[in-house]
Amino acid sequence: MVQFFTEAHSTEAVNQRVGASCDPRLARIAESLVRHLHAFVKDVELTQAEWEFAIDFLTRTGQMCTEERQEFILLSDVLGVSMLVDAINNRRPAGATENTVLGPFHVAEAPIRAMGETISLDGKGELCRYEGRVLSLDGMPIEGACIDVWSDNADGFYDVQQPGIQPKWNNRGRFITGGDGRYVFIGIKPVSYPIPDDGPVGQLLSALGRHPYRPAHMHFTVTAPKFQTIVTHTFVGEDRYLADDAVFGVKQTLVAPFERADDPAALWVSTFDFIMTNDDAREAV
Amino acid sequence: MVQFFTEAHSTEAVNQRVGASCDPRLARIAESLVRHLHAFVKDVELTQAEWEFAIDFLTRTGQMCTEERQEFILLSDVLGVSMLVDAINNRRPAGATENTVLGPFHVAEAPIRAMGETISLDGKGELCRYEGRVLSLDGMPIEGACIDVWSDNADGFYDVQQPGIQPKWNNRGRFITGGDGRYVFIGIKPVSYPIPDDGPVGQLLSALGRHPYRPAHMHFTVTAPKFQTIVTHTFVGEDRYLADDAVFGVKQTLVAPFERADDPAALWVSTFDFIMTNDDAREAV
Repeated sequence: MVQFFTEAHSTEAVNQRVGASCDPRLARIAESLVRHLHAFVKDVELTQAEWEFAIDFLTRTGQMCTEERQEFILLSDVLGVSMLVDAINNRRPAGATENTVLGPFHVAEAPIRAMGETISLDGKGELCRYEGRVLSLDGMPIEGACIDVWSDNADGFYDVQQPGIQPKWNNRGRFITGGDGRYVFIGIKPVSYPIPDDGPVGQLLSALGRHPYRPAHMHFTVTAPKFQTIVTHTFVGEDRYLADDAVFGVKQTLVAPFERADDPAALWVSTFDFIMTNDDAREAV
Repeated sequence: MVQFFTEAHSTEAVNQRVGASCDPRLARIAESLVRHLHAFVKDVELTQAEWEFAIDFLTRTGQMCTEERQEFILLSDVLGVSMLVDAINNRRPAGATENTVLGPFHVAEAPIRAMGETISLDGKGELCRYEGRVLSLDGMPIEGACIDVWSDNADGFYDVQQPGIQPKWNNRGRFITGGDGRYVFIGIKPVSYPIPDDGPVGQLLSALGRHPYRPAHMHFTVTAPKFQTIVTHTFVGEDRYLADDAVFGVKQTLVAPFERADDPAALWVSTFDFIMTNDDAREAV
């Protein structure tokens, strides 16, 4: 007797179809996706009109995407999915620096600069000295770590959002640690900015009564041989959006001090140590 | 104390953000969507690479959509979501004709034809006489019911898929019942056909080890004042894809007899009565 589709057995009706040729991991993901998707539709008793709206919303989201704009990543971000995937895949022992989302504005192969140099090239904003150490979990300095940093400028835009307006590589650079594991560079105290909100995701945020702003942050990736790569930000503690980052990127341990500096080269100083875990530590968590 | 995002409290972190200005129904849907979506990601422990694949898949699905092609509806169809939404919104008492999906090939305002006329205009296929009655749930004939019918041709294509090749309105027509509630028309015995499978959804079906075929069916919508509209198909009982319709449209009660007819005008006959429920019956289920 064939099991036709019924409301009560909708999940089983779909999942029983997966063929023997299907990759086991795909089968596992598809089974769970169908189960949770059907549970959602049943939970809210989605109407035909709401389904039609959802189809149109997804279509518009896809059609908003270009080489420069990834609206589905924005959707994933504002629903907390990007942070959740990052959290699941980067569980670390207590004391290690936590990850947060990479974001869409990283550019590979930024210039390698000498320790202490300035990454702010447009003369805008309040200068800030960033300094600290790259350490292993047991407190040893890590030599040869690469710290890749980037931030928006004082107007709230990354250089790649304003080609021809901002200097190339503005507020970007890479720094390599020496034997003491120390880093220091001059950037600006970053400012909060809205994620692109002129598309379907912006409309969704507005309908939900949410704003599109991210609290001010400096991006860091820290790589070193035999250590897990850290992809993270440090956040300006007193930012007005710290408690309600549109993409949920803030973690308590990533809120950094930004203090007035007694320094002719920079108005502010932000000190933060990066604590790396061994490459094989993930399995041990 | 701010509740920042954590893996353990990811759902609450997102849902606590919904503002007071949000429409209550949207808030309800968003809350459930986030809860089920996060549960899915946690259940399968989605990797970063799988997340990237999903973003790309959704983007390609959106970019496949045109005026003539709706790839997100196909995705909804093959995941059983379209049938589930239809089922939830069209629960009916036992004995009433069940709904199934409308499909993408309905065209409004098909020609109104006299009872007994032929809708097949291209001379292809095996002719079939469709006949039966439109009745209320208590067995009374319904006068003035409009039966809107459409099917593919013998090559497996709807007229709108082959403009300039098939005659306009080929295998389509509307019929209005008289006082006896009877209908009769000549069409073809329809054939099974694949849903469009040259896009991301076709790739997904292939990866899942599933085929893209729908079993042969004749589409009907039946409308009458003061009765719930029926959107359904009748299926050819011996079709090879009856048990595994790519879009899960088959219900046991919609499998119709297709029998050899002793009729010079048609090789086959298919008899099916449509049983309508009062417009207010939905509340009473």
